[in-house]
Parts: sequence; structure tokens; C-alpha cells
Amino acid sequence: MTNEAANKRSPSMSALSEANRNRILLAVDEAFERQVTFLSELVRCVSLRGQEAGIQTSVEAALQDRGYKVNRQVIDTALIGQHPAFSPATITYENSWNVIGIQTPAISLGRSLILNAHVDIVPTGDPNRWQDSPFKPTRRGDWLYGRGSGDMKAGLSAAIFALDAIKAAGLELTAPVQIHSVVEEEITGNGAAMALASGHVADAVLIPEPTDEKLVRANSGVIKFAITVHGTPAHPREVSSGVSAIEAAIRIIDHLCKLEARWNEEQVTKPFFDDVDNPAALTIGTIKGGEWIASVPSSCCFEGRIGFYPGDKPQERMKEFEAFVATVAAEDPLVQRCSEPVVQWVGVVQAGYTLAPGSEAESVLAQAHIAADAPDGPPLKAYVMAAYLDAALYAVHAGIPSLVYGPIAENIHAVDERVSLSSLRRVTKTIALFAAQWCGVRPACNKKFAEKI
Amino acid sequence: MTNEAANKRSPSMSALSEANRNRILLAVDEAFERQVTFLSELVRCVSLRGQEAGIQTSVEAALQDRGYKVNRQVIDTALIGQHPAFSPATITYENSWNVIGIQTPAISLGRSLILNAHVDIVPTGDPNRWQDSPFKPTRRGDWLYGRGSGDMKAGLSAAIFALDAIKAAGLELTAPVQIHSVVEEEITGNGAAMALASGHVADAVLIPEPTDEKLVRANSGVIKFAITVHGTPAHPREVSSGVSAIEAAIRIIDHLCKLEARWNEEQVTKPFFDDVDNPAALTIGTIKGGEWIASVPSSCCFEGRIGFYPGDKPQERMKEFEAFVATVAAEDPLVQRCSEPVVQWVGVVQAGYTLAPGSEAESVLAQAHIAADAPDGPPLKAYVMAAYLDAALYAVHAGIPSLVYGPIAENIHAVDERVSLSSLRRVTKTIALFAAQWCGVRPACNKKFAEKI
Repeated sequence: MTNEAANKRSPSMSALSEANRNRILLAVDEAFERQVTFLSELVRCVSLRGQEAGIQTSVEAALQDRGYKVNRQVIDTALIGQHPAFSPATITYENSWNVIGIQTPAISLGRSLILNAHVDIVPTGDPNRWQDSPFKPTRRGDWLYGRGSGDMKAGLSAAIFALDAIKAAGLELTAPVQIHSVVEEEITGNGAAMALASGHVADAVLIPEPTDEKLVRANSGVIKFAITVHGTPAHPREVSSGVSAIEAAIRIIDHLCKLEARWNEEQVTKPFFDDVDNPAALTIGTIKGGEWIASVPSSCCFEGRIGFYPGDKPQERMKEFEAFVATVAAEDPLVQRCSEPVVQWVGVVQAGYTLAPGSEAESVLAQAHIAADAPDGPPLKAYVMAAYLDAALYAVHAGIPSLVYGPIAENIHAVDERVSLSSLRRVTKTIALFAAQWCGVRPACNKKFAEKI
Repeated sequence: MTNEAANKRSPSMSALSEANRNRILLAVDEAFERQVTFLSELVRCVSLRGQEAGIQTSVEAALQDRGYKVNRQVIDTALIGQHPAFSPATITYENSWNVIGIQTPAISLGRSLILNAHVDIVPTGDPNRWQDSPFKPTRRGDWLYGRGSGDMKAGLSAAIFALDAIKAAGLELTAPVQIHSVVEEEITGNGAAMALASGHVADAVLIPEPTDEKLVRANSGVIKFAITVHGTPAHPREVSSGVSAIEAAIRIIDHLCKLEARWNEEQVTKPFFDDVDNPAALTIGTIKGGEWIASVPSSCCFEGRIGFYPGDKPQERMKEFEAFVATVAAEDPLVQRCSEPVVQWVGVVQAGYTLAPGSEAESVLAQAHIAADAPDGPPLKAYVMAAYLDAALYAVHAGIPSLVYGPIAENIHAVDERVSLSSLRRVTKTIALFAAQWCGVRPACNKKFAEKI
């Protein structure tokens, strides 16, 4: 929280009345089936990287209908390499844009808020391994299945319907609130980076990623790499005259596991990370090599990511990584025989963040979390997420208190991804109560608007 | 050689006269620049798998111009699985056909001959690694560079121009001769299999693969496989809930190296193979896995080949291979956690052959080889080629003496493939002298034809 925000205390900052709280909770319940319908529509959108225009058009329309001031925001690639929030991009961004919806009260009394959610999703893998088509939202018991249902279209629906509920309760926020529907979280973070770099800041940001209704205390810094190695192609009749690029790639991967182990060992000295399982988490996400079944393959490329700790500069970790690969190239007897492996940075290069315990934002969220599961839910737990989160950008580059808190989901990035609808309902309530308390509320002037939604 | 062939001895089978030999050698020399031009045209044809129609049309025209009876021969896929010369195919063959050119003398006195050459080539890898464009035939000193120059368009040019030289010398063969310009050698052997299965046989077959002017004494049996493994995808934040299919594939490859070592150990008991370097030669030609940089990958597929010894049934080796992979799947702690790896047979499944020393065909070739490098070249050497050759089909499935003998080439299946033109000239002479001696010659009746070429 900025000093300015601390000074914005006003009558609206007093605890929500029980009546208002109950009205908000009831409004979430009343709209919940519509929220699930909306979420299902979002899941139907195949918003893979570069294909987000469809879902963003839907989100844009949803926000316009609700009276937000809405802007499309194209990623300005000239900022990449200039503004520290950006990571290297390997694609053009013509068809990938953020949608930013803003509500500004006539008089601002409370603390401003950004609700951020990303719309991009990762590929589904073989759709035949799914119970249902990955893009056919399917309700089964408490779960809604579909790629992106948990990560994080449910969270986006929660943000929108939480603010709806405040209005439906006859209230309006007394501080500016923004909804950022962003692209590129799954690869570079450049969607959120663009929102931040263009001056869209607030006194807090809340990102409803699927966190099992827990708060993220810290995340890991992440760097995403591609390594290409060239061997010497040959005919199988003279294997020894060739050097297999696939074999060399496998050797490099094998060595990188030692780097992962070394970085994991550092966890004992890192606050919050000491009991995290595999905080560095080297994963090789893709590999592609060779072009003919009966030739010693000439080239192989693999992509992956590796993590480190809040406070570590990603540039230092990149240097360490590059030096490690160079050492492998110099010392491994097989890799020696290849041309120098080429390391490229093809996605996020970003530091991790820590949400220092004891912040006002966390305190307000913790109260909202308990109150959402009326009459009294369990206390808010916090944990470490050893992965990249857009929250890091706000925390690291703008010092904004960043809360990552969202519904229970299973199998994100995997087969049969699903989100718990009862959890989504609770989280929507938590966000609504959090926004009401953080921004402050007063009886709505614009009754017509309240009735409309 | 068949009994029938042995009975075909006639006056024409006596040694070539010195005058005729010299006329033939001179005719090869006189046409050699035209041969290089023709070879260059062949190299310009991008005859990758499935794209052989262009080069075959050129070969067809060249044979028609020379007065051959020419047929296009489409591969009859109904024969696959029925005739033992065929291997599994994974593509359709609409655009892949053999060209068969036949010359039949009015009266056949000598032994018939097939000259076989494949026109399909393997991919080039990154063309930027080549000194010149792979499909721009480039002469540099004694070498002609280009993909397929050595393997084996030079050999095809040698076959055609060798027979041209006999005619240009004012002679005609006294036995039927066929030129088989076939597809699919680099993957399944189904081009040559189709020629054989359709009854195109002869008393000997000669295949001018690039063998450095040596004779192939034996080759290895080969099976070509694809293995697909499915893991459990996951988000990097919970790596331990996933099973990386790429990691599992690497483990399987690692185990397969032990199978290769075991098969290599058998060489000590195998005639001709005891001093071959890596006779089993497991090569992993391609790999492709995962679809997102920051997910634990759900599937991975790799393709490769492994060899064994003449006399071994490929079906037995396939069973042993499959059982080995099943054991890995049952016993390796990581692969255990995947669904059973799927082994598919996607190319050659073919036995090796041995050319028993002492055959008449070898003897005639050995004399031609010496005489071609006038006045007296070095004796013919024989060696083992631990790779698939179309010759195996003729030898194993039809008992036809199969001679694989061709020019010096370097970097086949590799970067900057090239063929020695001085060697190609010698080999063309050897083939011409071999054909003249094997089939027999007499003065040409059709002087006009002889003058035409």
C-alpha cells in the first residue's frame, strides 16, 4: 500500500455493515447460475496463444454492458527490452490485446483496486485423453470441466461477478476499480507488463488464479529457455562419423538436472521456500529433433523453464544458466563434438515476489475470506507457488501489494482440467467483500444501473 | 545365378575382345560430360519421399529417348503384408511410382541383368549449413555436390550411361537388360519390392549405391520403429503430480542402447561381421514431444532403426525388440508411471543378405572393375555395409545374385553430400564392361540407334 493509499482512510473504510455484507453475499448467490453460464462461454473460446481475440471481444462486450469504460490495449513491442516488466517475445502481437475496464466513482474516497485475470490458455494435448472435448464446458457434480476453466477463466468470472454483486446489493465502490483481462500470462507475462507499463496501477491488485482458496505468500522467479544443438548428420552405415544432435540434447538435459538440483539446494536459506517441493522445477516442455528416421540427426531443439527465488535477479540466473550450458559444451565428450549449443530466451524472464506478512491488503482479504463462507469460514492460509505469476510484475516493478487468491481447481495444464463451482462461488463472495471493504462502498446513486445488472 | 542362366553360355559369353572393351571405355569417356549434365539435372529434382514424380518423369523421358520399353509402376498397397518383400507403409503411394525400362534383344543368348537405382533422397537438414544450396548441383574439383548426388543419382546415371556406351561402341547386348528407377529405398524398400513382386527378375542385379568402388559382401537386416509414450501432463508448480513423456522417452532410448550393445555382441559369431564397427547401429532419427514450454509434457514420439545379421528373421528381431520395450515399461520406475509405450513399425522390416564369395557374377564384376581403370586397376575389394539395401530383397526373396557396387561419395545423408566424378567415370566403365560380359554382346544391328545416342 502506498502512503497515499494509507491517507485515503474515510468513513467508507469502516467495516462493512452486516446488512451490506449479507446483501452482497446474497447477490453472488442469486447471480451464480448466470456466472456459470458466462464462465462456460469463456471456456468455449479457444483462447490459445495468438487466438485470444474471440474471448477478448466477449469480455469487452460484457464490461461495456455493465457500464465500464473499456479499452483495448495492444502490446507495444517497442517497450520490450526497455521496460523491465517485459520479457522476450517470439511472436507478433497484432491479434493479442488486453481489455481494460474501469469504473471511476464521482468522488474517490477509498483505495483503488485492480482485478487482473489472464485469458490465454495452454494447449490441451491429445483431446481424446479428455472425458469430454476440452472446449466443451461440462458440468459434472461440483466441477466444471474444460481447458482454462480453472486457469483462469473462473477467476475472470469471479472478478466480474463480484463487482456485479456489489451493484446488485445497491452499493457502489468509493474508489476506482479496474478489471484487466490480459493475454500472454502463460508464456511471457507481456500482457500484464503492458497494462502496468501504460500506467494502470492501483493501491492493490488481486489476481484470482486457481490457488485452492489460499493466498500466495511468494512465488518463484522463472526463466524460459530454448536450447538448440547442431550435431553432424550421417548415414546409419557410418554412425561413428556423425554426432547425433538428439543424443547431445539428451546429454544437455541430463546435465541441466544437476543445475536444478544445485538451485534446489539453495532453498534452505530462502524465506518461505524451505519446505517447497522442487522450487527450481526444471521442466523440459517440448523437444523436436531430426528429420529422417534413418539418419543421424543434425539438429535438436528443446524448450523449458527453471525457477529460482524472490530477490534473485533473473539476469544473474540467466548468466549462470548460460555459463552452465557453456561448461557442458566444453566438457561433455559428446556435446564437445557439436557446435556450441545456442541458448535463447523465449518467454518469461522475471523475478519472484514475496507478499510480506502483515499488510493491510492481506488483512482485508483474510476477513473477507472468513466472511464469505458464512457464518464463519476457516482462516486464510498462505503458501508458496513455485511458478510465474503476473502478480510478480506489480509487486516487483511497482511495489503494489499483490494478492493471488482464487478457486479450487484440478489438473491445470493437464487433462480434464476442472474448477470447483462451490469454491468459485465462495471466491466470488470473498472478492466482492474484499473490494467492498478495500475500496469502500456507499449506497448507489445510480439505481438504474444497479437494477440493470 | 539360376540354372537356366548357367545354361545360357554361348559364344557371346567369351571374354570381351580388347577392341570392344576399348570401344566401350572410350564411349564412356566421350559421353561423360553429358553424363555429368544429366546427373546435375537429377540432383536439381527435389525427390524427397512422396515428391519423386518430377525426377521419375525425367528418367522416363531419358529411357524413352533411348528406345527402352518404359513402364510406370505404381506400388500396389494390397501386396503389403502379403508379399514378404514389402515393409509397412505409413503413406499413400499415389504420387510415388517406379520407372522400369527394358531392352530385349531379338534373340537372347546371355544372362539377363537388372540395374537398379533409387531416386528418393533424404531431407537436407538446415540448407544454410551447406556450402551451396543442396539442390543446386555444384562442381568443385573432382566433386559434384548436392543432396542425392552420391546416394544415389550418380549410380542411376552410371547405369543409363553404361548401357549407352555399349551401344555407342557399336554393340548390343545379347540378353534382356532392365533399368529399375525405384522409389522408397530410404524408408521402406517398397519400390524395389514392387518391381520384384511384379515379376521383374533377372540372372543378376547390380545396384550402384555409393560404395567407394567396393562390393558389398553382406548387409545388415534392419527394422525401423516409432515409439510413442504418454505421460501425465502437469503445471510446473506441481511437477511431481505429472510424469514427463519426454523424460520417459529419454529413459527408453537409454535402455535401447543396452539392446544395441547386446545385439552388437553377437557379431563375434557372425560371418563377415566380426570386425564391423557397430553392426546393430541403433540410431534415433527423430524425436518430437510436448506442446507447451511450461507444462510437463504429455506425449513424446521418437523414430529410429536398429540392425541385425544376415540369416536373422526380422520378425524374430521385432518380437525381441517389442519384448524389450515391454520389460522397460514394466521395470523402469519412471516409464512404469506412463501408459504402455506403443511400438509401431514404420519402415523397413527386412533381413540382411550375404553375397557368397566365388559367384560368377562377382567374378565378372571383379574383372570389369580391374579393366575399367585401364590398363589395370586395383583388385575389387568387398566389405560389409551395416545398413538396409534394396539388394536384400532380390537376394533374400528371389535368390538373385545381387551386386552392390558404386562410386566414391562423401557425406551421404549429411551436409555437403558429394560424389567423386573420376570415380563415377570408372564405375560407369565397370558397369558397362560388366553388362557387356554378363549379358554378352554382338555387333549392333541397329546402327541408327547407336548413332543416335
